[in-house]
Amino acid sequence: MSERLIYLPLGGAGEIGMNAYVYGYGQPGRERLILVDLGVTFGDMDSAPGIDLIMPDIRWLEDNRDRLDGIFITHGHEDHVGALGLLSGRLKAPVYTRRFTGALARMKLEEAGQPTDRLNIVEPYPHVVEAGPFRVQFVPVSHSIPESAALVIDTPAGRIVHSGDFKLDGTPVVGEAFDPVLWHKIAGEAPVAALMCDSTNVFSTHPGRSESALAQPLLEFVSAQKQLVVATTFASNVARLKTLADAGVAAGRQICLLGRAMRKMVTAAVETGILRDFPPVIGPEQAAELPRDKVMLIVTGSQGERRAASMQLSMGRYLGLHLHEGDSFLFSSRTIPGNERPVIRIMNNLSRMGVNVFDADSGFYHVSGHANRPDLEAIHDLLKPAVVIPMHGEHMHLREHANLARAKGLSAEVVTNGTMIDLAGGGVRVVDQIETGRIYLDGNVLIGAMDGVVRDRIRMALNGHVTVSVIVDENDEALPDAWVETMGLAAQGRAGVPLARHLESELGEFLERADHATVMNDKKLEDGLRRITRQVSMEEIGKKPEVKVIISRLAAD
Amino acid sequence: MSERLIYLPLGGAGEIGMNAYVYGYGQPGRERLILVDLGVTFGDMDSAPGIDLIMPDIRWLEDNRDRLDGIFITHGHEDHVGALGLLSGRLKAPVYTRRFTGALARMKLEEAGQPTDRLNIVEPYPHVVEAGPFRVQFVPVSHSIPESAALVIDTPAGRIVHSGDFKLDGTPVVGEAFDPVLWHKIAGEAPVAALMCDSTNVFSTHPGRSESALAQPLLEFVSAQKQLVVATTFASNVARLKTLADAGVAAGRQICLLGRAMRKMVTAAVETGILRDFPPVIGPEQAAELPRDKVMLIVTGSQGERRAASMQLSMGRYLGLHLHEGDSFLFSSRTIPGNERPVIRIMNNLSRMGVNVFDADSGFYHVSGHANRPDLEAIHDLLKPAVVIPMHGEHMHLREHANLARAKGLSAEVVTNGTMIDLAGGGVRVVDQIETGRIYLDGNVLIGAMDGVVRDRIRMALNGHVTVSVIVDENDEALPDAWVETMGLAAQGRAGVPLARHLESELGEFLERADHATVMNDKKLEDGLRRITRQVSMEEIGKKPEVKVIISRLAAD
Repeated sequence: MSERLIYLPLGGAGEIGMNAYVYGYGQPGRERLILVDLGVTFGDMDSAPGIDLIMPDIRWLEDNRDRLDGIFITHGHEDHVGALGLLSGRLKAPVYTRRFTGALARMKLEEAGQPTDRLNIVEPYPHVVEAGPFRVQFVPVSHSIPESAALVIDTPAGRIVHSGDFKLDGTPVVGEAFDPVLWHKIAGEAPVAALMCDSTNVFSTHPGRSESALAQPLLEFVSAQKQLVVATTFASNVARLKTLADAGVAAGRQICLLGRAMRKMVTAAVETGILRDFPPVIGPEQAAELPRDKVMLIVTGSQGERRAASMQLSMGRYLGLHLHEGDSFLFSSRTIPGNERPVIRIMNNLSRMGVNVFDADSGFYHVSGHANRPDLEAIHDLLKPAVVIPMHGEHMHLREHANLARAKGLSAEVVTNGTMIDLAGGGVRVVDQIETGRIYLDGNVLIGAMDGVVRDRIRMALNGHVTVSVIVDENDEALPDAWVETMGLAAQGRAGVPLARHLESELGEFLERADHATVMNDKKLEDGLRRITRQVSMEEIGKKPEVKVIISRLAAD
Repeated sequence: MSERLIYLPLGGAGEIGMNAYVYGYGQPGRERLILVDLGVTFGDMDSAPGIDLIMPDIRWLEDNRDRLDGIFITHGHEDHVGALGLLSGRLKAPVYTRRFTGALARMKLEEAGQPTDRLNIVEPYPHVVEAGPFRVQFVPVSHSIPESAALVIDTPAGRIVHSGDFKLDGTPVVGEAFDPVLWHKIAGEAPVAALMCDSTNVFSTHPGRSESALAQPLLEFVSAQKQLVVATTFASNVARLKTLADAGVAAGRQICLLGRAMRKMVTAAVETGILRDFPPVIGPEQAAELPRDKVMLIVTGSQGERRAASMQLSMGRYLGLHLHEGDSFLFSSRTIPGNERPVIRIMNNLSRMGVNVFDADSGFYHVSGHANRPDLEAIHDLLKPAVVIPMHGEHMHLREHANLARAKGLSAEVVTNGTMIDLAGGGVRVVDQIETGRIYLDGNVLIGAMDGVVRDRIRMALNGHVTVSVIVDENDEALPDAWVETMGLAAQGRAGVPLARHLESELGEFLERADHATVMNDKKLEDGLRRITRQVSMEEIGKKPEVKVIISRLAAD
């Protein structure tokens, strides 16, 4: 059998979030492996209530960890590094990142109580990291966080370019520009067997705009405001923080950063030398004492996160600061689909206070961090890969991206989570289908998405909950009293008496009638009690609740 | 005391949905009243899991129903007529609508088992409905449902124009055009004391476009597709259904309507004479047998509703029809904010099947039914009201609309749900603040939003649920066995044994230690058991669940 060059996405190919891509090279089933990125995504009330974080199920990789030669993190966004602390302990492989990403990765490991000695800070291209049969280079790209990198992965079966998250920004304000000269050089070094490529913005038809294009509009915006100015953006967008802060200072205001994530990010950027001339900042106490037209707050919570500064400010006082009629609040951000409700809630809260709200719809106050459709075409043209494998996208993004590549005569394949392909033969050959899925962090426990925990929560939220407790005495006779407690159900139904009392009386009748065989059989008794509870609830209030039955059997003395 | 002319929104002023606006005229506290619209809004998992419908709390109106002279329904959208069946029985007032709206109102009443004899079908302007001191005229306006009407409400204290939902469409395909000549006439008849005005699209800066502008692009779209074409839009947008169907027929396809709401709406439109030349339709069985390029499905579910045709088709077979690679699916609709997640889910499902998805982002396949910013300015100019009172909007829409009016020199006031104003003196005077809120239809029971039912459901969804059952025997001693059932919680925590068993053992220890006073006191015993359950759960799995405790006290023989 000949060597294979495999690609296996475990997360990120079929969703935007929780990226985790496996590459392997070697004899079938004995390939040496590397993992690119280990990210999280966030739950929502519709699909994962109560869940703190969602991660890719890496069981396959765990089962094969003796073959894993390294974990490479392209950049410091949560969807690329967020699961490192919680999951990398299961993999026990060395972790490679650039400096700034490494500072964030270190925090993740420390927060999870993991050792940090497997973390290796590496230099970018042309420095080479050797990991088993792979020679990996971090190539700087521009993105909405500093030091994002594409990976050039050389293998005995050819070169792979893994784009990471990127845009074509020649003037990114903070961090490295996208360098076409460098990329031309890379393209000329060796043919690209496959380009695994960011698909996020494939539906955006205009060329992406540079971060630097925001400086002038933001300065004009801040200068035009007459009272307190608040701006929110993604905490990790260090360049944006600087653009906003510079605009504030140029408009004669002092800058106050609100939100732990934002201060942490600026600290990491300063400490790693990424961010040099950030203006001095003041604390919230000082901000509260200055005239309102001399202060600009830059705050977290652009996606409507419940505990973040934006939502808190919109609901009243936060760290001694509160907004007034005539203040201005700018969303220097895009609302990620699915977050509309809480963001709109903030806007209405602010409206009630008389605060003037500005969003990025005009295009002047936000640019995306991802390559748009024409930018993707430019990268395809530049690298001329034998095949384009779209990643970092929902299915519709991957499919559109593949169609885009094909329209220009390139070969392209949609490969989604769990599909293992072999690239060694020149084309794309599906060689395996791995069981993948999601792991949830719930409180401090990791549970499987299919464990039924979340399904039960959703059912309780939709249907309410009834507890039924009955006692079977020492003589194996059911006591005719059933105790019922309801939660999340109307107190009273059609009978005009409390639902719980009505259920108790109906269940009591059932118990009195129940024959010995039913009473002696836990399953039968429980089924009967559940059936009546649901049936009576349906008649009374039109709902079939979730029912838990507790049968207590008293032991004979 | 002199007469007041009051305005009191009970719903719709501070949200888009569940419209209900009260007008009154007479001596303070003895005003004769009319109600305009009685609508619903829909719950979501974030804020109202398991709730079927949300309605305005009309208690104030119920308490004053002897003063209520009529209910006027402007048009047949759910957010204007949806609560008529469930709530109008409490008000016992005559209901006035135009013909098509009346057909829908009748269905609402019948579904709720209400008598329909209070329903009065009335002719439009210049016909006058007298209701107490009010003389009300229904004036046709264009909107995204046929026979929408503004109300001209004449009172002894002056004329009010209640815009209803409207747009300025001279060629609305189905139903009446917005007639500027008629509106000029109305504006000339009497000064307008107040304009209560639709605010939905105040943030849309371009002039609204006509429904008829879609015919050509839709024809071109359908003609260009090579396989089955599916189009979804709002069921009540009869004009759109016709535009879509006409495009399909012109492109050589037969039309099949899928979705109960859509067929109901077309039937009502045909029966009331609104819709004349709708093309003949075929059933799903016939559609399944025809060549795919000879069929066009027009289907419900443009907002991602779980049970509607769009979602069902995207998940597989629906009524014997299923989509194939190369089919085309068009959203001839806008995604209402908050519905993004399920709509995106449909798009990804379709992408997985290889179906080509088209949305309305291009602007060619959908137009809004509401007046945009310049259209609102045109109406202000035309009616020159003494004051503009924005309605039908979230707070940010109302505020923006008021600012828009003021910028043109008009007086304007934001009046939100529960605020009663008096317009009789010329200006706007706040005279009362009424307790308002929301009523939920939950199963077949109406409950108050503040009853705690939904709060408990959300808590169970976020925190999970534990049931604890203990028995106190005939001798007033707690049996040391506690029975525990969990739901929506990780099966196992740090102790490495099932959570329920671990809780039982910890609770058993507590029961053994508990003193007589605790055992004899339900409250004390319950508090102790709950506290330990939450504390142990926190240690074990990092979550504090909702806890129901059932204490069964065995009676001495």
